[in-house]
Amino acid sequence: MIKERLKRLRASLRRRKLDAILITEPGNRRYLSGYSAADHGIQESSGVLLLPVTGKPLLLTDSRFELQASEEALEFTVELYRKGLFTLLKQLLPGLGIQRLAFESHYFLHSSAAKFSLLAEKIGLDLVPVTGVVERMRAVKSEKEIALIKKSVLLNERVFQLIHSTIEPGMTEVEIALALELTMRELGAEGPSFDSIVAFGTNSAKPHAVPTDRVLASGDIVLIDMGLVLEGYCSDMTRTFVAGKPGKTYLERLRLVRKAQLAAIEAIRAGAVCRDVDKAARSILDNGGYGRFFGHGLGHGVGLVVHEEPGLGPRSRKKLRAGMIVTVEPGIYLPEWGGIRLENMAVVRETGCEVLNEDCTGLDL
Amino acid sequence: MIKERLKRLRASLRRRKLDAILITEPGNRRYLSGYSAADHGIQESSGVLLLPVTGKPLLLTDSRFELQASEEALEFTVELYRKGLFTLLKQLLPGLGIQRLAFESHYFLHSSAAKFSLLAEKIGLDLVPVTGVVERMRAVKSEKEIALIKKSVLLNERVFQLIHSTIEPGMTEVEIALALELTMRELGAEGPSFDSIVAFGTNSAKPHAVPTDRVLASGDIVLIDMGLVLEGYCSDMTRTFVAGKPGKTYLERLRLVRKAQLAAIEAIRAGAVCRDVDKAARSILDNGGYGRFFGHGLGHGVGLVVHEEPGLGPRSRKKLRAGMIVTVEPGIYLPEWGGIRLENMAVVRETGCEVLNEDCTGLDL
Repeated sequence: MIKERLKRLRASLRRRKLDAILITEPGNRRYLSGYSAADHGIQESSGVLLLPVTGKPLLLTDSRFELQASEEALEFTVELYRKGLFTLLKQLLPGLGIQRLAFESHYFLHSSAAKFSLLAEKIGLDLVPVTGVVERMRAVKSEKEIALIKKSVLLNERVFQLIHSTIEPGMTEVEIALALELTMRELGAEGPSFDSIVAFGTNSAKPHAVPTDRVLASGDIVLIDMGLVLEGYCSDMTRTFVAGKPGKTYLERLRLVRKAQLAAIEAIRAGAVCRDVDKAARSILDNGGYGRFFGHGLGHGVGLVVHEEPGLGPRSRKKLRAGMIVTVEPGIYLPEWGGIRLENMAVVRETGCEVLNEDCTGLDL
Repeated sequence: MIKERLKRLRASLRRRKLDAILITEPGNRRYLSGYSAADHGIQESSGVLLLPVTGKPLLLTDSRFELQASEEALEFTVELYRKGLFTLLKQLLPGLGIQRLAFESHYFLHSSAAKFSLLAEKIGLDLVPVTGVVERMRAVKSEKEIALIKKSVLLNERVFQLIHSTIEPGMTEVEIALALELTMRELGAEGPSFDSIVAFGTNSAKPHAVPTDRVLASGDIVLIDMGLVLEGYCSDMTRTFVAGKPGKTYLERLRLVRKAQLAAIEAIRAGAVCRDVDKAARSILDNGGYGRFFGHGLGHGVGLVVHEEPGLGPRSRKKLRAGMIVTVEPGIYLPEWGGIRLENMAVVRETGCEVLNEDCTGLDL
């Protein structure tokens, strides 16, 4: 997979008359090299790739990551920086015959770019800011990647179902979140793909709720948003249900959210404009009188990273392409009452889409 | 605490003839506002602060975080962006009488800065890149903060000791890492301050090892690097020991690392230059013949975030100030053999330092 990806990226660089690209975005780094180290934020990188159009690609990192880098990034020569990335680049670049060097403007700090510009001027190099070159490649998945993501989705569902069957009044949000994460790892996941959200009652009105010590009471809404990483690939799913017997208002609202989700799924196909897919769901909620309680975008791409291109938001004019994988997650959030969000993942196909999920908890109405 | 911090920052802005600052760095955001939401990386911010020298400070976020922001950031007016941060800034800035607006160059993407510059030009605003203004404030802790960090350190030790007493051959790295994180939360921590490192045998030669399914064998080195967050404040500690009876080579190397750690602790005091503290430890390892196996810096500040200013690295000419809290973590890493790292945290005082740790596992030689 790596060789093919490098080949496609090189072709893309040639078309742009670029001699090389510096890859700083961690998802892109893993996608192009297989090197799986995480960054501790953008200020503490675990390495960057320097990919010339011709010649062997380099992985630049520090000694902490030397072993892992050489074990994982088999197509790359690992070079260590002891005095920082820019010092190493200053030594390496003049020998590589690079004139026009692209860097990832969307994952490069303003302060680093200022330093880098000074260096480029000194050694007579043209820096070319680019955005999204590799992200656009990553957005369209191969069938092999789709199969891996499907595996991740199904394992995530299995974890959900195991824990779902144990949930009862008296448990806390934190307790359930921990049980989810423990079960993920026990069943072979690398870990969660993001911090699990477990929210009871009015806490579910926070779309990004952090689990608390709140105790589950009978009749409470339970919103669980969870995902895991399996063989590098992420899953992401949200289920909402009630502890005990759901009331009439809850069921009405749940049906509306599900209707919005199904309308969006109906709208997904290659060529569909992202904001139109968002609108398909949003207008159902609008017409039901809940539009103003749906404050986020409809969904996002998922792959090696849990949030990828494309964004399915109300302002995106981008078109879906076959092989993209997106979440479809409409929700409504009423501060005094609680929230309902339903999230599945779907692969975009030429004439429609294929939902990857099988679990129906909270969807069978 | 928040009011006092805002006051100090405003004074600092006035000295620089700045009318306001835009805070994007998540640790700084929490430090100045109390708002504790996490970012999903720099590309998915959960909000920014706009702090004018006079007038009420603003917290700009999106609707997902509205509730949390207004509950936590009591000194701030929460403003929501629906069409992105820059659109909101375009509406707000002209009314605030701001001429010179600082932004955090070290936590601002190159691509965002490009957009922001266009906007600033349109509305006749001078953008001033600054770095580290708030980080320098954060680096020096108040006695109240020191007390909170001490609590975090002691809870972290308690968790370590509980799990340490259960470790025996047959357990896996992942199993121990999960037990650590579970126990942290059970004892009241918000969670780990970073992904725990549990590394057996040769895995311990990777300073940033990720726990695997490797099974502990008698005689293996066990390296555990762990920290937790308690009431917002982080701890960070590393212990290395052997499952069973340690060999002679191990003990010699352990003693050398401990000697290096003690030499650094001896060198810490207000006014000491960071690289000299690093050197105090490094020259012990150099003289012992292990200098080239110590590839990282000696330590780093710890506070609301687990990696803060100051960095105790071989190139830092900065001076320590009383009230700073740093880790002291020399280590040696031999790929074919394994690694040893010992890490404690210390508060810089006028005439020396105060080690916050009490646990002596692997230190009593």
